[in-house]
Order: sequence, then structure tokens, then C-alpha cells
Amino acid sequence: MSTDAPANNETVKPRLPRGLIDRGPLDLAATDRMLSAIRENYALYGFEAVETPLIEYTDALGKFLPDLDRPNEGVFSFKDDDEAWLSLRYDLTAPLARYVAQNYDALPKPYRSFRVGQVFRNEKPGPGRFRQFMQFDADTVGSASVAADAEMCVMAAVTLEKLGIPRGDYRVKVNNRKVLDGVMEAAGLGAPDQAGRRLTVLRAIDKLDRLGPNGVRALLGSGRRDESGDFTKGAGLDEAAIATILAFTEAGTDTNDATLVNLAEVVAGSARGQEGVAELREIAALVVAAGCGEDQVILDPSVVRGLEYYTGPVFEADLTFTVQGEDGKPVRFGSVGGGGRYDGLVARFRNEPVPATGFSIGVSRLFAALKAVGSPIVVGGPAAGPVVVLVLDKDQLPHYQGLVTRLREAGVRAELYLGQSGMNAQLKYADKRASVCAVIQGSNERQAEGGATVMIRDLVLGAELAKGSKDRDDYLDLRQKAQFPVLEADLVTAVQEVLARHA
Amino acid sequence: MSTDAPANNETVKPRLPRGLIDRGPLDLAATDRMLSAIRENYALYGFEAVETPLIEYTDALGKFLPDLDRPNEGVFSFKDDDEAWLSLRYDLTAPLARYVAQNYDALPKPYRSFRVGQVFRNEKPGPGRFRQFMQFDADTVGSASVAADAEMCVMAAVTLEKLGIPRGDYRVKVNNRKVLDGVMEAAGLGAPDQAGRRLTVLRAIDKLDRLGPNGVRALLGSGRRDESGDFTKGAGLDEAAIATILAFTEAGTDTNDATLVNLAEVVAGSARGQEGVAELREIAALVVAAGCGEDQVILDPSVVRGLEYYTGPVFEADLTFTVQGEDGKPVRFGSVGGGGRYDGLVARFRNEPVPATGFSIGVSRLFAALKAVGSPIVVGGPAAGPVVVLVLDKDQLPHYQGLVTRLREAGVRAELYLGQSGMNAQLKYADKRASVCAVIQGSNERQAEGGATVMIRDLVLGAELAKGSKDRDDYLDLRQKAQFPVLEADLVTAVQEVLARHA
Repeated sequence: MSTDAPANNETVKPRLPRGLIDRGPLDLAATDRMLSAIRENYALYGFEAVETPLIEYTDALGKFLPDLDRPNEGVFSFKDDDEAWLSLRYDLTAPLARYVAQNYDALPKPYRSFRVGQVFRNEKPGPGRFRQFMQFDADTVGSASVAADAEMCVMAAVTLEKLGIPRGDYRVKVNNRKVLDGVMEAAGLGAPDQAGRRLTVLRAIDKLDRLGPNGVRALLGSGRRDESGDFTKGAGLDEAAIATILAFTEAGTDTNDATLVNLAEVVAGSARGQEGVAELREIAALVVAAGCGEDQVILDPSVVRGLEYYTGPVFEADLTFTVQGEDGKPVRFGSVGGGGRYDGLVARFRNEPVPATGFSIGVSRLFAALKAVGSPIVVGGPAAGPVVVLVLDKDQLPHYQGLVTRLREAGVRAELYLGQSGMNAQLKYADKRASVCAVIQGSNERQAEGGATVMIRDLVLGAELAKGSKDRDDYLDLRQKAQFPVLEADLVTAVQEVLARHA
Repeated sequence: MSTDAPANNETVKPRLPRGLIDRGPLDLAATDRMLSAIRENYALYGFEAVETPLIEYTDALGKFLPDLDRPNEGVFSFKDDDEAWLSLRYDLTAPLARYVAQNYDALPKPYRSFRVGQVFRNEKPGPGRFRQFMQFDADTVGSASVAADAEMCVMAAVTLEKLGIPRGDYRVKVNNRKVLDGVMEAAGLGAPDQAGRRLTVLRAIDKLDRLGPNGVRALLGSGRRDESGDFTKGAGLDEAAIATILAFTEAGTDTNDATLVNLAEVVAGSARGQEGVAELREIAALVVAAGCGEDQVILDPSVVRGLEYYTGPVFEADLTFTVQGEDGKPVRFGSVGGGGRYDGLVARFRNEPVPATGFSIGVSRLFAALKAVGSPIVVGGPAAGPVVVLVLDKDQLPHYQGLVTRLREAGVRAELYLGQSGMNAQLKYADKRASVCAVIQGSNERQAEGGATVMIRDLVLGAELAKGSKDRDDYLDLRQKAQFPVLEADLVTAVQEVLARHA
């Protein structure tokens, strides 16, 4: 049997492949509370749960390399026994598209759903970047209305606040792919053969935060030499085109009204751009109608996010507070989620367009954010451990088991010590479990004159006692409270009293 | 971009690889309630949560084919970019062994943990057999005490009752690998070179339910010809050995005391067998001390379960009620979980034995069982859908959005209709969502003389109305209740009243 210990004493090294992690009880419990809060809010918005498997056909995920009969390298893939390629899902959007296409007639349309689950990336892991991680997505499929996009933004904002991110510490930023298309047209980059230059322009815009307007200007023009002397070739735009792009990057303001005026100017010559601005205007009005101010959801032309498959509005939930970066300097926390409209994804399976929009949360990023702001949902020390009933006399095991059972039946988390060690090691075990209380019964207690007793040990007070007390009266009082005998019949009451002391 | 719709209109067929399924909101919510109840009870027993990733090194799972440099075929495997074999986990026990070995010094010992998660089998799927399914495991690692095994059995029994399986409808059955070893010794099959015959004997015992004692007798002797004429070669035991094995299969009784007497006789000549019987005796006493009767946990020599890596006590949670089988005839529901002691699994990683015992629940099997007994945890129709606010005038979208927002802010699940259809289709959508209530506002309502109103439509009463009423007064009363106008200011109260009617 392959799982037996090898006879030759060759041991296997216990280790995980890189980019994968184990998670302990504190982390799991806090994550569960966070996910429940998100679920509850998404349900309030009319979304319902659905779950798809972790394995899909590679072609259903759209993850074949173009023109090659093998899957994309970023995806974990393997062949089924009929030679069909299977992959671990890469995100929760492609499986949803498959699910909706497969169950199209049975589903209500528009179809609002949320999904939470693990996704996998066969990529180089790094700090905070894992090869298995959790996403929490909400999507509305079958609605072309920008009201669906507006709702995603509002729901994201309200959810962040309900999770404990204060208003002012986040912004949901909204842009529109159509506006970007319009800007490209206005800059003379609208033709199909300009795709490469458009990408260079997008990358340049994306670096605005880091390089500032002058750096971006260089990247839009002939190119830019950085401090190290490395040269990055630019998009080669003329002055007028550069001015258009820069005007676009400077179109964002603190108010949606002003931003819309600026954007309308930039894309004045492009019908598609104007359509995009009109959509943003409608979204802004709907967001206000849903009770959200510009300090919650705001138009922001600098959002250049996952633009490959988005076809309309795009959004990003940006946390604006700073945390300590790897180099010790403060850095903005940044994005915890985002999404947008993807009208082409379900169409892969059907010969008709199926409009859709969605928002995806990076669960571990959001979890880290809630920790950073000290949200009550995730903070809090470890829960107290179970009450430990010590085993001093092995022949009394069934009797000790009976004591444990009485505690459990009263709803008290409790366990029998199951190792082989002596009393001191058993008490150390209870400390390691963060137990508040231990129950001890040796022959003295068992054979006490007035009937069998148990010793109740308050491990929290015991630890205080061990630190030493200044005052003798205090000390004696503490010592009496820290360990005291009770009749077996009073076991449950006495334990509950000790637990209540430290609740 | 590979996820774009193909330009040539070649669509991908939306489908899942076989043995994989999607799950809807009802199923997910009921499963969550079930898992929460198990978690809560396991915590009461002092177990704490841990989670490991879905991918592990194949060698860490012990899933290489013996003497071959490739993984077992039953496991989904793929190579990492450094050529190391990775696999999707096959169960939750092998990853736990890796986790404990990797974190040995940091963990309290004994270490009690529970884990719930998806596991994968690259095997032929069938009815009720999937290639991805969920397990819920509890394990105690680092305890050699049979008290740990007894606790697993008690915890399984109590958990089943808390989930709604009535006492009498289940039995947790306990056997011991050492007793089986002793029986083999007593039958002259103890030597290492008898492994093949021991396996034949185990398989024969496993068929007792189906073939009866005479069939098993034939399989233990020269062999057995079935009704179709096929011949199965037997173990070739002599009469004395056959008698020993059959005495063993008949050792089980309704009481543990009698079973222990029978077993002691069968293994009288084997020290290992006697050790096994002594352990079973101790387990029986501990189970009683924990408050469980023989109608909950019982010794049963017929349990021949996953014996490959078990080293001591083994147990199985057997549901004794019948359900309708595939052929329409009643069949016993059977096993929903099991486990046992596996003292060799962690030792694969360390040069010392690490005793361990565990119990694993097949989540979907248990879920089906709870449905079969009508447990309140899993039954119940679909939750009512959200309140749907209809969109009759597109230019009023922000206003409708405001109505939805007021409902949500009052904690009422609500949504704006986001499709393109007319009023009747919108009401059908609300019916499909199982909504109890729709909110309608056309220009008449909006421009009502005494101030803007909304029409509240009770969709449940509306459906009754549509069926027709015998009595005209009833009908008029019903019609009035089924749809009525209220001032916009009273929207929330009116909706809550309608929801309360059908809560």
C-alpha cells in the first residue's frame, strides 16, 4: 500500500508546493465571519448563491493558447482519460459564463448570482501572491442596463462599510471602456491596426501614479530613459495626440459633474466615446439615487483595469489608507476588488450576445484590509480553548470520560486529555490550547470524606499568580480562586462560573 | 484574447466533465446549515478548524504508483514547472499527516482538528459517485489511547442525532484490525507470505451480507460458482480454518458483552487478537461512560473497512433505515462515514511512530440521508425571493433605484428589475424568483392627486386569485389585498406587511 510507512525508513519531506498555504482556526473563523457578512449583503441586493466545480474543460474556460492545441501556461491543466484537456478554474467568471450558457432557459433573466471559492493560477508566486486563492464574485447576466453596473458599484461600497471599512478609507472608482475607446479614436489610434500602440498607451496611462505626467508624456512620445539608464520605447504619438491623452488622464476631478464635462470635451469627436460618457453620467445619477455620495463611488478616468475583456463600465474598489510597505515606508493599501461589463463572455457559447456585468473581491486582500483597519469582524484574540479534564489515574478513564460528557451535555466545550504525559505536562497542554479551566481528580479528590470531589483550576488566574502579586491578602485570595475543590455533583456549575469570570 | 467571442461564430459547447456538478442556492444553503451544525458539535468536543490547500506534492500524498515514477491513476496529477509532480488531494487524511509532520513542534499534542473540503478522485463516476466531492474529517493525532477512538465513535453518534437522524435509525459500528489479525493467525494465515490469502478472506467476509454464510464458506474453501455460472476461486482454507473464520463472522451479537465473549474465544490463541479484544472492551466501557448505549455505538466484527492503512480500531456510521433503491426496491441507506486508527501515516514523514485516529463524513451522502429522514436542517422550500421593483418608465430609473434603496436600508431583500421587458414579463420574472411582493409605479401612481403612490402587489395572493375563488365576497376581499396603492412614504411598511402575511 503506497500510503504505508516505507520499510526502508526513507522519509518524505513534509512540505507544500510554493504559493500554497495552510490556514489555522483563527484565520478560518474570521474569514468565515467576513464571507457571511458579504453573503448577507449580497442577498439583500437580490443575488443568490451558486457553486461550480473547481475543474472545467479547458476550452469552456477559454484558456487554450491561441492557435495552439494546448492550454495557457498560467493555468493548471491535465488530460482526462478521453484525452480532453481539463483545467483548474482560473477565476469565477469563465465558469459562470459556462453555467449560464448551459442552464440558459431554466434561469431567470436577468440572473443575479454570487459565488465564493478557490481559484488557481499557475504563475510565479510572490509576497501576498498565491497559486490558490479565494474570490467572491457577484454578477448580473442578461442585463444591458447600466443600472446593473451602478448597482455593482453601490453594493461594493455598502459591503465595504458593513465590513468595517470607514467611509473615506475607500473609493469605488468607475470608468468606461467606451470612453477609453473614444480617447483612442480622438488620438488617432482607433483603427484595428493600431492595437499595439493602444496597448502601449494604456500601459503608459497605468503608470501615471508612479511616473507623473512628464513620465507618461515621454512614454506617449518617443520614449523614456529611467534613472538606471534603461530606455523604454514610446508610443510615438504626435503632440496633438499626446495632449488628448494627457487631457484624458487629467479629466478626473473631485466631483462627477466636473469630470463628466472634462471627459465630454476629450471625446467630443467620437460617437463611442460620447456613448461612454453618457453611460457614466447615468451611472452617476443612479449611484446618487441609491444613496451613495462621491466619497463612496466616484468617476475616475485613471481606472485602466483588466481591459482585455471588458466592454463597457469598469470599476475598482480602492482602499485609500496607507499601510507599512515591505520597505517600511507607508504605501496606499490599493485595490481589493473590481470588475466591469463583459458582454462577450457568455456569447462564446451562444450565437447571440448576452450582456453581463460583475464585481470580484480578492478575499485574502480584503481580509488583510479589514485587519489593517481593525474591523471587529476579523480582530479578536483566539477563542478560549476547551475545558481539559486531566487523566491522573489510567484505570479511571471511563469516570473521567463521564465528567467530560457532563460538561459537553451542558454545552461546555470540553475534552479528555488523550496523551501519555504526567500532570504538569497535561496542564501545559491546556495552556497551549488556551484553555481557561482544567478539571483535576486524583485519588484524594475521588475518595474525599464528604463524597467525591474534583479540583477546578482557573488557568487564567493561575498564570497571574505565577507572575507574583505585591500584596499578600490579594495573593491568598487569588490563590483560593485559582484552584478550588467542589463536589462532583457541582462540577458543571463550578466550571461555568470560572468560564464566566473570563468571558 | 482567448476569452473573446470567436470571430468565426464557432461556439464552444457549455458542458461539464463527467462526475462534476453545479449546485444551486437551496442545496448550498442546506449544506451550509448541516456543516455548521457539525462544526459546532466538533468544537464542543475540543476540535479546532484547519484548512490545507487542494494541491499537494504527489509524494506527500503517498500517491506514487509503487516502483514507478508516476502518480496513481486514480489521482488528478500534473507537473509543476520544476518537473515535480503535483496532485489534487484524494482525501483529507494524507494532507493532515503532511500538515502535522510539517508543524509538529508548534502543534499541541495530542492535536485535535477538523477539516471540511473538496477532494478529487480520477475514477469512473457513477450514480452518486462524483470526481469532486466534499468530506468532513475529524482527527486526533498524537494519542495512542483508545479513548481517542471511543471519542470518535461517540462524537459521530451524537453528531448524527443533532443533525436529525433519530436514535434507532443509525449505528456506529466498531471493530478492530488487531482482532482481524488475530483471526487470521488463528486460521493459520498469520505469516507474511499469506497476504494474498488474507485479502481473499477479507473480501469473502465483506460479502457476508450479500451471499450469506454458505456463500462465504464456499469462498473460504475451494471456491464458489454463482447463478451465472461464473466461478470465483476460494482461499483454499481447511475445515478448521473455515470454522474459525465463520465463528468470527458470527461473533457479533446485540450486546457488547456477548460479542466480546465470542471474540475472545475466536482469537484465544493469538496475543495480537487478545490485545484487540481488550481494546474493544475498553472502548465499549468508555462509550457507556460517555452516555451512549448499544443502540448508538456497538461492537460489530463484520466491519471490514478501508483496512489497508488502519492499524487498530475501525468504525463505520451505518444508517439502518431503508430508502428506495434504483430498482424501486427498498435498500438500507448504509454508510455515511467511517474511520479508524492509522498509526503509520504521519510516520511516513518522521522516523518515529505518531499514533492517530480519525473519522470522515461523506458530506453528500450524509446530506442525502438527512433529506431521507426529513431533517429540519435540510428540508424547507426555497427561501422567498427578493421584492422586485418594476421599471415601467426608463427615464425614472434613478427614482425606482431610490425605492429599492429604501427597502434595502430597512433590511428588506429587494432589487430593481434590470431587463428590457414589459410589465407582464417583469411580473413573470418576479414569480420565477419566488418573490412574494412586487412594487409598481407608472405615471398614474407617480402623479396621483394626494401625492406620489406605488402599487404593492402581493404575488402569492395574486396566484391564488388567478386560480379562481368560489365566493364573490372572498374574491373581492382577496383582490383588494392582492394589489393596493400606498403613498410612497409608506412603501417600506406596506411591503413589510405583505412579507409578514407569508412569513
